[in-house]
Amino acid sequence: MFIHMIRPKSIAVIGASRHPDKIGYQVLKNVLDAGFPKDKVFPINPKADQILGLKCYSSVKNVPGDIDLAVIVVPAKIVPMVLEECGEKGVKSAAIISAGFKEVGNVELERKLVEIAHKYGFRFLGPNIVGICDTIKSVNASFCQGLPLKGDIVFITQSGALAIALVGWTKMENIGLSDLVSIGNKADVSEIDLMEFFGKDPYTKVITIYLEGTDDGRRFIEVARKVSRKKPVVVLKAGKAKRTVGAIKSHTGSLAGSDTAYEAAFKQSGVIRAPTFPSLFEWAIALSKLPLPKGENAVIITNGGGAGVMATDAAEQYGVHLMDIPEDLKEKFRKFMPPFGSTYNPIDLTGMAGAEWYIGAIEAALKDDRVHSVIVLYCHTAQTNPREIGDAILSAIKNAGVNKPVVASFIGGIECDEESDRLTAMGVPTYVSPEQAVAALGALYQYYRYLKKPIGKPVKVEVDRDSAAKIIYDALNEGREFLLPSEAAKVAEAYGIPTLSKPLAKNLEEAEELAVKIGFPLVMEVESPQIIHKTDVGGIKVGINSLEDVRKTFKEIMENVSKARPDAEIKGIIVRKMAVQGREVAVGMHRDPIFGPLIMFGSGGIYIELYKDVSFRVAPLDTVSIDEMMKETKIYKLLTGFRGEKRGDIQSVKDVIARVSQLALDFPEITDIDINPLFVYEKGCMAIDVKILLKRK
Amino acid sequence: MFIHMIRPKSIAVIGASRHPDKIGYQVLKNVLDAGFPKDKVFPINPKADQILGLKCYSSVKNVPGDIDLAVIVVPAKIVPMVLEECGEKGVKSAAIISAGFKEVGNVELERKLVEIAHKYGFRFLGPNIVGICDTIKSVNASFCQGLPLKGDIVFITQSGALAIALVGWTKMENIGLSDLVSIGNKADVSEIDLMEFFGKDPYTKVITIYLEGTDDGRRFIEVARKVSRKKPVVVLKAGKAKRTVGAIKSHTGSLAGSDTAYEAAFKQSGVIRAPTFPSLFEWAIALSKLPLPKGENAVIITNGGGAGVMATDAAEQYGVHLMDIPEDLKEKFRKFMPPFGSTYNPIDLTGMAGAEWYIGAIEAALKDDRVHSVIVLYCHTAQTNPREIGDAILSAIKNAGVNKPVVASFIGGIECDEESDRLTAMGVPTYVSPEQAVAALGALYQYYRYLKKPIGKPVKVEVDRDSAAKIIYDALNEGREFLLPSEAAKVAEAYGIPTLSKPLAKNLEEAEELAVKIGFPLVMEVESPQIIHKTDVGGIKVGINSLEDVRKTFKEIMENVSKARPDAEIKGIIVRKMAVQGREVAVGMHRDPIFGPLIMFGSGGIYIELYKDVSFRVAPLDTVSIDEMMKETKIYKLLTGFRGEKRGDIQSVKDVIARVSQLALDFPEITDIDINPLFVYEKGCMAIDVKILLKRK
Repeated sequence: MFIHMIRPKSIAVIGASRHPDKIGYQVLKNVLDAGFPKDKVFPINPKADQILGLKCYSSVKNVPGDIDLAVIVVPAKIVPMVLEECGEKGVKSAAIISAGFKEVGNVELERKLVEIAHKYGFRFLGPNIVGICDTIKSVNASFCQGLPLKGDIVFITQSGALAIALVGWTKMENIGLSDLVSIGNKADVSEIDLMEFFGKDPYTKVITIYLEGTDDGRRFIEVARKVSRKKPVVVLKAGKAKRTVGAIKSHTGSLAGSDTAYEAAFKQSGVIRAPTFPSLFEWAIALSKLPLPKGENAVIITNGGGAGVMATDAAEQYGVHLMDIPEDLKEKFRKFMPPFGSTYNPIDLTGMAGAEWYIGAIEAALKDDRVHSVIVLYCHTAQTNPREIGDAILSAIKNAGVNKPVVASFIGGIECDEESDRLTAMGVPTYVSPEQAVAALGALYQYYRYLKKPIGKPVKVEVDRDSAAKIIYDALNEGREFLLPSEAAKVAEAYGIPTLSKPLAKNLEEAEELAVKIGFPLVMEVESPQIIHKTDVGGIKVGINSLEDVRKTFKEIMENVSKARPDAEIKGIIVRKMAVQGREVAVGMHRDPIFGPLIMFGSGGIYIELYKDVSFRVAPLDTVSIDEMMKETKIYKLLTGFRGEKRGDIQSVKDVIARVSQLALDFPEITDIDINPLFVYEKGCMAIDVKILLKRK
Repeated sequence: MFIHMIRPKSIAVIGASRHPDKIGYQVLKNVLDAGFPKDKVFPINPKADQILGLKCYSSVKNVPGDIDLAVIVVPAKIVPMVLEECGEKGVKSAAIISAGFKEVGNVELERKLVEIAHKYGFRFLGPNIVGICDTIKSVNASFCQGLPLKGDIVFITQSGALAIALVGWTKMENIGLSDLVSIGNKADVSEIDLMEFFGKDPYTKVITIYLEGTDDGRRFIEVARKVSRKKPVVVLKAGKAKRTVGAIKSHTGSLAGSDTAYEAAFKQSGVIRAPTFPSLFEWAIALSKLPLPKGENAVIITNGGGAGVMATDAAEQYGVHLMDIPEDLKEKFRKFMPPFGSTYNPIDLTGMAGAEWYIGAIEAALKDDRVHSVIVLYCHTAQTNPREIGDAILSAIKNAGVNKPVVASFIGGIECDEESDRLTAMGVPTYVSPEQAVAALGALYQYYRYLKKPIGKPVKVEVDRDSAAKIIYDALNEGREFLLPSEAAKVAEAYGIPTLSKPLAKNLEEAEELAVKIGFPLVMEVESPQIIHKTDVGGIKVGINSLEDVRKTFKEIMENVSKARPDAEIKGIIVRKMAVQGREVAVGMHRDPIFGPLIMFGSGGIYIELYKDVSFRVAPLDTVSIDEMMKETKIYKLLTGFRGEKRGDIQSVKDVIARVSQLALDFPEITDIDINPLFVYEKGCMAIDVKILLKRK
């Protein structure tokens, strides 16, 4: 379907203009200038007979033959009318360049476009786009001045300004694109649709996206997951800064900035995240040109110690593993360096290295089965020229006769710059700085590891949904947007989460009875809808050892609370067992407006927000995501028995994570869950405090 | 003194050669090609009469008149001889290009050079250098092909390969340098000497250094601190990666990688650390071209929302504060944008923005006293050209008539690139990506904040040095490289650190006596030279409440320890008060081989190595460093009363830090100190565990 849009065989320009300063003129001219067959281009303008030598039609309906793509540049108000005509004519797709819709508040007008397209069963791009540049079929249905260079990277962009600017920049940088598509307001076609299309497109090897936000988080993950199995997806997601953080209601919520969900979603779907637009393309080049490595061992070969050290620093930063060179391989390297060279990775051939040494060392590395990738660094010297070193790299690769990724950094002036372009074109992505080369190889490794990773199995848990539902809906019916601690504990229990019981005493008498029943030592804590952080108001006491203590504490808590929060309605005082101290972790959920339930795991206790040792994944979770999210935290190390500490029951925590995920999926009314602390023991675990926030649907 | 070396009036090239492929030829040719007066250049070669049209001398001693700089390119073995001749002649300085010294193991030969120079009282650069390039007096005493462009940034480099490569690269990037100096093995002249020289040099505005390591940490800090008050020092310090971490003996030691000391030293001396070589120069340009801001408020003005979002992300990352725009200023911006533009910083003029809107908006920002810096972003559009936008920026600055820093990012093709160069030359540093522009402004802010910061006062503490000395030297005389816990506690006490007493019971009887004397509850812990982590071997028990408990525990600890560590010599069992629980922090010291005592503060407890919430400074400390290092940690927030927690006595912790620093300065035999935990109370604090490691001097 999208093939008609991206690589049309016929184009109508609706709103084509005779005035060179109008976009309607520029777009038509761009279509023609890019070399699209003239007889398949149809300007539509009721007031003109002819534009740029082409016959003009008063309506798209009058055009003879099929139209694959209608490019619309008429004023916003008229767009619904011409779109209707497109439908009547049976055009296969549209690209609405016209602005003046949702971006200026005209939501209704934009919705009308979608209705029309649905009615006639065609798809449209935009509105408010720059257009489509396709170098495969030479289509420039945009107001970009000229097409980008031919290539196999697609750039999908939510920013139109970036589209135009990057046509020029990619040309200057010699970066080839298969397509550049501006998605504008994405009223109909989104980055997800295009990711799916380009995932199957034989001309495209790497998909790059500039993204500010997706509208359907779940589908983004699904499609990205499928596509990234076939080809790399690299995303520049802007909008990490916390300039606009909304109201914070829960620990998990406050820890999950809006960017957290994207970060989690990218990890779960194999999307590679680039930090800047130059790195987006630098990485895409490496991903499009290079074979995947077959293992983790990278070797750096350099003629400058300094460049080598910089690359080593970068390797640690970007997750590239530098191989410890085995003695026999060191022996081989030694042939290509002076006695004061270094065979400790980086392999330093020294400033004396000429082409022959480069060839020898690179070939030795590539031929060795234990080496999986090579980073070549060259600092321009007075004795060598970049071209001969470039040739040396290419010869070494040819001589070795193996298919392993090689990246390079050529540091120097204009000759180095030119040689870098040539080498990149020849399949050895070459960058200015060692960091850039290592970072690009790091992106390749990130992709390699994603593909190598086992595919997770969905987690299934048995739960008592009905019991939980009753508690939740009762609270909602009472008009509450949270569960009381005693209720939350019951919901957790219903979902099979081992939970500390929290029986409620409405008065001192009941408290004494409970104390006798449970036995000492005890904890007492206030139960009040208004009090979330009990410690802050003196609403909780631990280590209660006698009935006398119970009486004293009951009075004390009541006094503390009414002093600190005179407004609070006290439902009673929980009298509960003092749980055996375990390792404190936290499991939580925050419902992201775009991605849905965002599940958290991390270090628990009262300092969770201080240390922020947490990680996130989007539900539903599979076995691999749960495993990964735990391993991303520091507390995980403790659970595995750090510094002689006892091991924690990791499996039981995984089970709790799975159950929290299920609870969130079953009840869209739950906005936040905090289990903190969850005590982890050598065997089993126990939720000590459970908080659940609700919102009526 | 260095003026003769860097900007000589006469040059002898010792080892000048007639053979164009020899460095001795190239260097002479480079000197002449750069335009140095022919009659002040003296080739020295006993086997030649004339080289490159100049009269040749058999020895430097035969040259008539003074020689400011002798450039030496003879083989390593002959260098001492010719250096001796230089001394006899009275040359004012030397630059030894010749290699074959310490870098290949010839330490003795290199030492000889220093001796000779000392004997005659001149200074020399190298050996093993590329040479000196000075654009101020057009000196190219190096084997770099041609001089860099003229400018006001000096580049001092420990990597020779980088020197040559960056001459080409800076030319290509239109970056001007005052000097480029390769320091090689720095047997005599170091980066510190040169930093001092260029600190006073009127031609140099910014000092940049590529550094792998300094030899005198203390002096580096002293000089950098003085110089950075006058002009910015930007350092690319390579070698962060932990590929080679030595043996780890203490918490503080394991947390202080070799890079940690540099990081601390840079902070204490105002050195700005750049992560890559391109950023080193990008930042230096901003620092050399721009006035310092007078406040924190930055405003972004853009024609593309996407570029604005990227810049916002970068602002958070690089510590640039985006101003909340006051309503009256918003009003002013609104005149220069369509109704759907944005006055929420970034100010989005939209893709419709032409030169007039840019002028208006930038002028409005610059004229407003509440705005201290401006970031202008331009995405190339079909309707505008970079030159007119560049002119708009320059006009706005002229119209506003104020001296505020303005940086820019022009995203687009070759025209944008050219305009960026022009704007940079005109005083508006302009970069490819928004991130680069913001990062450069961030460097300027870093410098601004350093200069604004109050100058710390040295901390003075009164201590009982003699008591500490006795304990320390007794242990060393016993052949021990550590203090026993009871000894360490006494040393801490002697230094005025509030410390939990740790009386030692040699047998059960003494333990019972101590228990009665101290009162319950108690802690008992094993004292053994072999046992550092007591928890790991069951060597510590808390909450002992009766004499019966004392007896039971004594037996238990003995059994645990002899089982876990049958090799351990048990000196006895400490019977001590159970300290009232306070907030757990840690204070420590690790003696860095280069910088000396590296003082640590951070979150304490057993998970210090897990969370690594620590910060470091090099002793001696001043009031400002102590304050800063505490504020860098997360635990500091807790001490100030986070989420309703009680405040901790911060002043008492500062005092402990000062005393630990003094202890480390007084005893070079102490290699490591760990106070962990240090319990912090609302009033005062107490060192619970003190560990001290020693090494005989």
